[in-house]
Amino acid sequence: MEQIKFLAGRANWIKGSALAEVMKKAAELRAGGRKLISLSAGDPDPGLIPRKVLGELAREVLEEVPQSVMYTPANGIPELREELSGFLKKYEGYTVDPSEIIITVGGTGAIDLLGRVLIDPGDIVITENPSYINSLLAFEQLGARIVGIPMDGDGMRVDLLEEKLRELESRGERVKFIYTIPTGQNPMGITMSMERRKALLEVAEEHDLLIVEDSAYNFMRYEGETKPLKAMDGAGRVIVVGTFSKVMGTGFRIGWLIAGGAIGKKVLMGKSPIDFCAPTISQYIALEYIRRGYFEEYHLKEALPGYKRKRDTMLKALEEGLPEAEFTRPIAGMFVMLFLPKGADGMVFASELMEETGVVTVPGKPFYTDESGGNALRLNFSRPSEEEILEGVKRLAEFYHRKF
Amino acid sequence: MEQIKFLAGRANWIKGSALAEVMKKAAELRAGGRKLISLSAGDPDPGLIPRKVLGELAREVLEEVPQSVMYTPANGIPELREELSGFLKKYEGYTVDPSEIIITVGGTGAIDLLGRVLIDPGDIVITENPSYINSLLAFEQLGARIVGIPMDGDGMRVDLLEEKLRELESRGERVKFIYTIPTGQNPMGITMSMERRKALLEVAEEHDLLIVEDSAYNFMRYEGETKPLKAMDGAGRVIVVGTFSKVMGTGFRIGWLIAGGAIGKKVLMGKSPIDFCAPTISQYIALEYIRRGYFEEYHLKEALPGYKRKRDTMLKALEEGLPEAEFTRPIAGMFVMLFLPKGADGMVFASELMEETGVVTVPGKPFYTDESGGNALRLNFSRPSEEEILEGVKRLAEFYHRKF
Repeated sequence: MEQIKFLAGRANWIKGSALAEVMKKAAELRAGGRKLISLSAGDPDPGLIPRKVLGELAREVLEEVPQSVMYTPANGIPELREELSGFLKKYEGYTVDPSEIIITVGGTGAIDLLGRVLIDPGDIVITENPSYINSLLAFEQLGARIVGIPMDGDGMRVDLLEEKLRELESRGERVKFIYTIPTGQNPMGITMSMERRKALLEVAEEHDLLIVEDSAYNFMRYEGETKPLKAMDGAGRVIVVGTFSKVMGTGFRIGWLIAGGAIGKKVLMGKSPIDFCAPTISQYIALEYIRRGYFEEYHLKEALPGYKRKRDTMLKALEEGLPEAEFTRPIAGMFVMLFLPKGADGMVFASELMEETGVVTVPGKPFYTDESGGNALRLNFSRPSEEEILEGVKRLAEFYHRKF
Repeated sequence: MEQIKFLAGRANWIKGSALAEVMKKAAELRAGGRKLISLSAGDPDPGLIPRKVLGELAREVLEEVPQSVMYTPANGIPELREELSGFLKKYEGYTVDPSEIIITVGGTGAIDLLGRVLIDPGDIVITENPSYINSLLAFEQLGARIVGIPMDGDGMRVDLLEEKLRELESRGERVKFIYTIPTGQNPMGITMSMERRKALLEVAEEHDLLIVEDSAYNFMRYEGETKPLKAMDGAGRVIVVGTFSKVMGTGFRIGWLIAGGAIGKKVLMGKSPIDFCAPTISQYIALEYIRRGYFEEYHLKEALPGYKRKRDTMLKALEEGLPEAEFTRPIAGMFVMLFLPKGADGMVFASELMEETGVVTVPGKPFYTDESGGNALRLNFSRPSEEEILEGVKRLAEFYHRKF
């Protein structure tokens, strides 16, 4: 039976991810026995996550808490929201009532739920250009039109944002919100400066817009001092998307949304019938992880210095191997964006690099909201070992020099 | 700042659940120190789930499998899809290739993902009347119009379905699919007869429609012999939504969708950016649960007889306490639908019953797709203990006799 005719018109808004293609090809090569070095992950390092400790927590919780295998409230178990509220106060510097927190199926779940109550087909969503591909795809699935604002080393160019807003407003276009990843941006690895953050909040105020702050990498900061936009937000314009993915691991699917008011209420109403609750076992593990101080003990004291070392290793290797190339120097997050010579095709380069040297990278192009970024290549330093980083960048540099 | 103006038009399709209201009121009473007897759950019994064994599995997996804390493929870890394929062949009697299985965040996650690729605003979805409230709400969120078909003791009245289809077709209305819970239906507790199943498949063939088979209660069957629609489907018209919620526990959020072809492909494309993957730890626990034969050892041999005893206890208590009342006699699932005298208001009755006797039930009305069902009351027998069932039904019968 032919299924295509049953697809909804809205299914046309669902696009495949160019990232998925790269991963598929890598999986095929691996299945064929090829040993690859991956600089392509979006994951933390499972070796820097206290898996034994988490395993013990899981065992304890499942055995001792009958509720741990059951449905729990759609906004999350109350104890976790309570702990998280204290956690955010301590580590993010803002106060949020536990009732305003909605625990979601990862940060991506929060982004989707939010989009579902904010975006009507044709609405404009403003993002950094480039921005996180899955957020772009999630907004586009809902019929949003993405308008990307270029970045510099200080983050989104707020001057260009203002220009664009004036242009859009003069055309009577409706902007729904500004989506930003201010800290350790994916894919650029850039952290927005404090000055830029202030300017962004001012522009949002002036044009009466919401800001969606994706704080995915806030707990992966290696140096510098910035505040979350939420902590600087006097007007209640900032909606926060957060996650424990980079701390406990991406597989637990624990994220959160802090929206409050009518938006939070509607999100919760919409969430209940479609995902019921974030995985209960993961919620209990997260609860105990915070409660017992493991964030300090394992993440801040052990994992974070490890990621910093890996970042240093990658930057040093790039500086030595590709002194002529342009690349970002992240103070947070897990990515470096490397730029090939102007006009080079990053998609072709990444594909040939993988086939010829076994080094997997992610072409930057699919993260861009326009035709730019063709020469960009996203490199991940959080997941590979230091040896893999050194060997990977070495092969990458050799290949680069053969090509250009 | 006023948030309401930012809500999308589509947010109007998101309705609150009357069920949530009941649960909220119960929570308030409990918070006030009131001891309640709940016949309102949609959960299995945490005491019949081998929590110690699951805890041990979780510990083992987290410690030994680095991948267990990481992102895994959007369609599920390959080993789980492989095992599930064998499991479905053995216990459900149909063959499905592992590549056709998409592991989802619970059955509700599968229903939402499917709706997102099939339903355009205004499309008609046919369901049993009454049907599972969260599925109705999920379809309505996407702009679907629900058309409910009455049931009798053999399930959906396929004769009335045909009549309705002819009527809709004559008006040029577009029906997208028929959603059915053939076994242990929620909220009715009715299991569709084999004859009715055959008739339903024939009607779908004749009118060229998809059937979405929600098999949530297929592993909670106490007697009788029926086959899943999927096992009787020569034409590939049946899409399966399944879950391990009633087996391992609702909190793990492990469900699946079997759609195949263009629909499965589109679902997977849409899923990847919005929930990334079903919780990895839950997937590994499910994998080992199947692999080690725990489904037979713990579910079929221990839990199922326990649920059967509870069902027997509830039916006997109702027969003795309310011999004049009409109620369903389930051979599968976890619910009995009790009907108050004609014209009685189940919403008011449930509310007063809870306040005056401390027995929590779920009014049936919100499950109905039209104005009928005002006198229905859904009773759950899977979660409460036998003592609670006896005491709960006793108080319910006394209250009933005071009222009517």
